[in-house]
Amino acid sequence: MKDEGRNPTGSFKDRASSVVVARAREIGAEIVVTASTGNAGAALAGMSAAIGQKAIIFAPKTAPQAKIAQLLVYGAKVILVDGNYDSAFDLTIEAANEFGWYCRNTGYNPFTAEGKKTAALEIWEQICLNLPNDSRPLNVFVSVGDGNIISGIHKGFKDLLALGWLKTMPRIFGIQSDKSAAVANAYFAGNETIIPISARTIADSISVDLPRDGVRAVRAAVETSGAYITVSDEEIIAGIAEIGKYGIFAEPAGSTAFVGLKKALATKVITAEDPVVVINTGNGLKDVRAAMMSVHEAPVIEPTMASLKKFLEKNK
Amino acid sequence: MKDEGRNPTGSFKDRASSVVVARAREIGAEIVVTASTGNAGAALAGMSAAIGQKAIIFAPKTAPQAKIAQLLVYGAKVILVDGNYDSAFDLTIEAANEFGWYCRNTGYNPFTAEGKKTAALEIWEQICLNLPNDSRPLNVFVSVGDGNIISGIHKGFKDLLALGWLKTMPRIFGIQSDKSAAVANAYFAGNETIIPISARTIADSISVDLPRDGVRAVRAAVETSGAYITVSDEEIIAGIAEIGKYGIFAEPAGSTAFVGLKKALATKVITAEDPVVVINTGNGLKDVRAAMMSVHEAPVIEPTMASLKKFLEKNK
Repeated sequence: MKDEGRNPTGSFKDRASSVVVARAREIGAEIVVTASTGNAGAALAGMSAAIGQKAIIFAPKTAPQAKIAQLLVYGAKVILVDGNYDSAFDLTIEAANEFGWYCRNTGYNPFTAEGKKTAALEIWEQICLNLPNDSRPLNVFVSVGDGNIISGIHKGFKDLLALGWLKTMPRIFGIQSDKSAAVANAYFAGNETIIPISARTIADSISVDLPRDGVRAVRAAVETSGAYITVSDEEIIAGIAEIGKYGIFAEPAGSTAFVGLKKALATKVITAEDPVVVINTGNGLKDVRAAMMSVHEAPVIEPTMASLKKFLEKNK
Repeated sequence: MKDEGRNPTGSFKDRASSVVVARAREIGAEIVVTASTGNAGAALAGMSAAIGQKAIIFAPKTAPQAKIAQLLVYGAKVILVDGNYDSAFDLTIEAANEFGWYCRNTGYNPFTAEGKKTAALEIWEQICLNLPNDSRPLNVFVSVGDGNIISGIHKGFKDLLALGWLKTMPRIFGIQSDKSAAVANAYFAGNETIIPISARTIADSISVDLPRDGVRAVRAAVETSGAYITVSDEEIIAGIAEIGKYGIFAEPAGSTAFVGLKKALATKVITAEDPVVVINTGNGLKDVRAAMMSVHEAPVIEPTMASLKKFLEKNK
């Protein structure tokens, strides 16, 4: 498990935004702008705050409250749009072009993948280098929305392979909710034609109608002998509590990758002997509503030993 | 700024719980139990999950939803009490005695302070060792509830001083909300008599009627030429957005320490030349409601350039 929930703003997106903000400073950009379902925006807002860079975030008004609160606390200018992520995405590019803002949009700004590939460099350093010489290939499980994280990870491994530092390309598995499966659909159809869908998964971080990095996302699985796997929202919710029992508190998009691993094992796509890494892309605190759906409500008792004993007796 | 919001379960309490869980394993405890306003419980639940230890958490039913969700997701048995932290605290000790559970309660189990003192070891390593030889003493700002964190930090510095590794004892400043100021009250009265109050600060992590480690908490400030400072809940809320602009997303208890630093500067208790470290004790995602109170709501527009231009025109 690679827990990206512990990054500075609590998600994988810090990898992308830190590189983009460094680039913005390099080119002297006055304002950086991004569309975001929440995590990319928080990452941009947090990284910008840390170096005093002005940032504007466009987010769908349906983004979880915790993510919106985080954007605002970091002092970014936040504009919610009465539409989905895709409409925010298009508006951001149009505005960036018209006003001369530096656009961070995922799958549009090439520096995001450069940031995200650092996860592959770390996986290589922390895991690949420690595998025995005769090991079967590593299997990497990651959830897919825009397709930029899986593409970035693939690029990192390709760089390492080209350098001769990585001996065996890991197999990369992209996991999508069956309610937001545009990339998986193309993979299953055996082509690279990304057909927009109407996404409505509870995993807001990977709820995307038109994946902007879809083609490279398909290739990440195809070229590494990985695969795409789709899972249901019910499985994603249940997965939050299952992965929690290992001490990892994941948001729905993180649970998605874990549930994908379970499915890959159940369908014998991999075996229990294969080395595996699951990437948790976001902190569970980002979406408490989803977390509450995955568990039973806690009982309430009077603060007395009599109440406690009565409760324990009833719940043996 | 020492940002403890990035610890595994998002708060300073991970330091205490990791040591307590290791101790539980050492003595072969079947069940570890703690009272908690949320953070200590999450830390115990997360650390227990990581090693497969059974844990029971008693929390006041008024704890923020994010904190309760986190406890449940980690698979701990959670029992909410219809009372405050102090009533949960007493019930936990009584139950531990009766059922033979290992009790982690803060200020009761001596191993919590041993875990918390590791923050002092890190501050020494990361900051004290890098100060010039003729530096003025370091000033450490930390919020105080039960009094166990400030006591643990003091103990860490005392250990280092005894070893001869630390040359100058840092000044330790304890910050409390004026609505939960039992330790500060004793400090201001010039004695060590902790008189219970009726705590009702919005900073739930430091809302304590009877601080269980109050005496040592008073001494941490007195013996280091530090001080206690009280701040209002309005200042704590405003502080969340102020500290956010530096790229740190803090829960109210973390903002409390930051606001205390501001007050110490304003009242010339310290000067702008004094080296300072502020400890953020918890991740802002733990209490989104408080975060939302510290910022203005984000505007909503239609996802069109026309709407955006109209908005920007109005908000120049």
